[in-house]
This record gives sequence, structure tokens and C-alpha cells, in this order.
Amino acid sequence: MNILLTNDDGIYAEGIYALWAELSKIGNVTVVAPDSERSAVGHAITMSAPLRVKDAYRRMNYFGYAVSGTPADCVKIAVLSILKKKPDIVVSGINHGPNVGLSALYSGTVSGATEGAILGMPAIAVSLATFKNPDFSVAASFAAKAAKNVYEKGLPKGTFLNINVPAKSAKQIKGVRITKQGKTPIFEKFDKRIDPHNNTYYWLSGETINLKADKDSDIIAIKNDYISVTPLQYDLTDRCMINELSKWKL
Amino acid sequence: MNILLTNDDGIYAEGIYALWAELSKIGNVTVVAPDSERSAVGHAITMSAPLRVKDAYRRMNYFGYAVSGTPADCVKIAVLSILKKKPDIVVSGINHGPNVGLSALYSGTVSGATEGAILGMPAIAVSLATFKNPDFSVAASFAAKAAKNVYEKGLPKGTFLNINVPAKSAKQIKGVRITKQGKTPIFEKFDKRIDPHNNTYYWLSGETINLKADKDSDIIAIKNDYISVTPLQYDLTDRCMINELSKWKL
Repeated sequence: MNILLTNDDGIYAEGIYALWAELSKIGNVTVVAPDSERSAVGHAITMSAPLRVKDAYRRMNYFGYAVSGTPADCVKIAVLSILKKKPDIVVSGINHGPNVGLSALYSGTVSGATEGAILGMPAIAVSLATFKNPDFSVAASFAAKAAKNVYEKGLPKGTFLNINVPAKSAKQIKGVRITKQGKTPIFEKFDKRIDPHNNTYYWLSGETINLKADKDSDIIAIKNDYISVTPLQYDLTDRCMINELSKWKL
Repeated sequence: MNILLTNDDGIYAEGIYALWAELSKIGNVTVVAPDSERSAVGHAITMSAPLRVKDAYRRMNYFGYAVSGTPADCVKIAVLSILKKKPDIVVSGINHGPNVGLSALYSGTVSGATEGAILGMPAIAVSLATFKNPDFSVAASFAAKAAKNVYEKGLPKGTFLNINVPAKSAKQIKGVRITKQGKTPIFEKFDKRIDPHNNTYYWLSGETINLKADKDSDIIAIKNDYISVTPLQYDLTDRCMINELSKWKL
């Protein structure tokens, strides 16, 4: 199994290293990832500047291509320029922090998997639901198992999996839930501050996880110590609305 | 009607000016847009840097807030910090160039409307299908008409409209089609070049419009000189796959 591995925390992040180590046991892994952190870039691609690709080495035999772009750029350039053969699967992660509910729309990690699906490959995104003292071992071994399953069973064209793992030990995790993308609003605000030059600036902050979330959602699954697996796709058409709009006089 | 207007080509682009002029005839328009071009940023938001907001003036009475962020940032900061009252509608555009098919996923203009829908407002994105010598008049007047319709009739929560207007005169345009997001693959490649310092760099290029597109799609509509109106939503869940995945042993 030929695996293309990317992320949005950058090629030197701990999460991608842990996933690389685990995936290397079950396949040939090529790492093509951003040269630095590209969190919350959504499905951005780099059009107005050219991309650079540099070799990146770390401990053990970790080798990868560091790209001066977004996760979507990484998957594109891997498939169109770096790799000789289309990979069997695209894996993105392990993200530092959850990508559940609406935050899946903003996530560069999810976007890496989206781009894999757009280019016709099965794909999975993997996130660990903590920013503090992350232990990636459970997430990495579950991701490897999921990748093997996807490789063997396939996914429908255009479908990819968004996996979120609670920051718990293997013993504490209660199981796996197949979920929907949560729709709970994120509570966001801007923190207005004054800089030393007396100019105003604004910091965005938000609470991703909300108790009022719809059940069967990714949000509730990880809250209750289940691994969440959400099948996603990238067709945004609201089919229910097509008939209704046809009645409008536009 | 209180209208929030944004775009991804920046607050000084011609497309947003044309739309501002037309929307000002039917409502109170507040412009909150990126301080420079943010094309192909997808649904990116700015988390690792603070945002700056500056006043921007142009000819006539055009006034707006120029934000050092993406279209999604602009809509967030407008609603959460700049405006005293939630707007009745969010309008994004007019984009220089089409946003049909898969390119809707990469588009900052579409993302401005997506963010409006996420924050609970009806929203429309408007694009003109040309990059060369754009005449925004047809697109601007259609957008104003559509905005008025949306304001009067409403849209279901989470739904927004992606409008693409062919670069033709009012006479040449054949009508309006309610469409689906096209699924035709984009033909993409990387152009590999060597810089004066003997380092390699890569330019992404792609052909957005493909003849083999599915009928009823936005792509085919604008190709045939129809204005395309596509209802979109942001729930990415692949509901068909939920049952299938439940059978997997994950």
C-alpha cells in the first residue's frame, strides 16, 4: 500500500511523526507536508505565488518533502509532480486538536483529505482532541487500522473519512462511533486590544465544543470518549432547495 | 434591508465597487472586505495573527472597513465587532472570474457567503465569468435583484446561493438556471521552473471549465450563456455512507 501523508501543523510536528511511524509498519509512506504550520487554512490553495519544495529529515528514517504551501497544495504537488504513481490512499494528520463540527470547514487537516478525494483517491483525516501534552499513540494506531480498512474495502468516489480521537488512554476509550458532522454553533468573539503604538488589533477566539450539540454528532462522540469516524464528501449542493428556487422569479 | 458586503479580490477591486453601487440603491450597505486580494483562500480564517481593521474610502461615497484577513474573517469581525446589528443579508463579490464546479471549494468569495450562512444569515456569492476587461453591470443588477428576493423569501438555515454570471451583455444572456455544483475534474498541472539562483519553483495552473461536465451543472449553465444560481450548504456529511461504515470493524 502506497500512502501519501500530509498535515497542517507542518512537516516537523509531532503528530505527523507519530502517524508516519505507525503507517510505515503497514505501507510505503511518502510525506509531503507544509514547511511550517498552516492551521485553519481551510481549502486554500496557492495561486499567486509559486511553491517551493525542500527535503526534510528527522530522527529515525523520517524523510519528507517540505512544501511552502497549504495541505491542499501538498496533496496536489505530490500527486502531480513528486510521486511517480498515484498513491493508494491519502492520510492527513495527526492534527493537534479536534476537527469536529463546523471546525471541519476551517481545518487544513481535513482539507488535505478533501483534496485527496477530489483527485480520486480514498482519504482520511486524523485529529487528536487536545492541544496540551498530546499522546498520539492511540490515534496513530487507530489511524493505521482505518487506513488498512479503507485500502481493502475502498470508499465511494468523493467520500473521505474525518477521524477524531479523544485524548484518552486505550483503556479509557469506549469504542468507535460512526457520526455526522455536528452543527452546533461555535461560540466566537474578538478580543480587542491596543498595541504599544496605540493602534487597535483583534484576536479571534472560539469555543469549538458545545454541550447542546446534536446527538450522533462527532462533537458528542469525542465528548463521551468514543473515537468519531465521520464520512464526508465535498459536493455542497443543497438538493432540497433546487425545486424551491425554481419557483422564484429570478 | 441592511446588507453586509464582502469579497476576496480586496476592498479596492472593481467588482465590489460595482456591487456596492447597485446594492446601495436597495439597502444600507456596510462594506467589510480584505485589505488586499485573498483569492483561493477557501474557508481560511486567521487564528495565529491578530486582525487589523482600517477605514477605506473611494470615489463617490464608497466607504468600507479594510481587514487584514480572509473573507471569512471579514464576515466574522463585521458581525461580532463592527456592526451594531446583525445584517439582514450577506453578499460576497463580484468576483473577478467564475466560481463554478470544484472551484467553489477553493473560492474566498464563496467562503464569504458560507460564513454568512454559518452565522445564521441568508447569503449570496456573486462571480463574473471572466478575468479580462470585466463589465460588472449585468452581474451587479442581477445580484441586487437576487438579494431582494432572498431578503423577501428567506433561505433555509444553512443554505446560501452561489451565483455565476456569464461575461455577456444583457441581450446575449439567455436566462437563469437553477443548477448543481459541477463535479468535472479540474485539469491541473505544475509548471516547474528554475529561478536566477538555480533553485526550483512550481507554479500551479488549471483549467476550470471542462466540456464533459454533468448537465444541470453551474459549469454548463454559464457555458451556454445562462446565469447560474446554485443553492449550497455546508454540511459535508456523506449520509449514504453512514450505514455502510457501521458494518466495518473499526
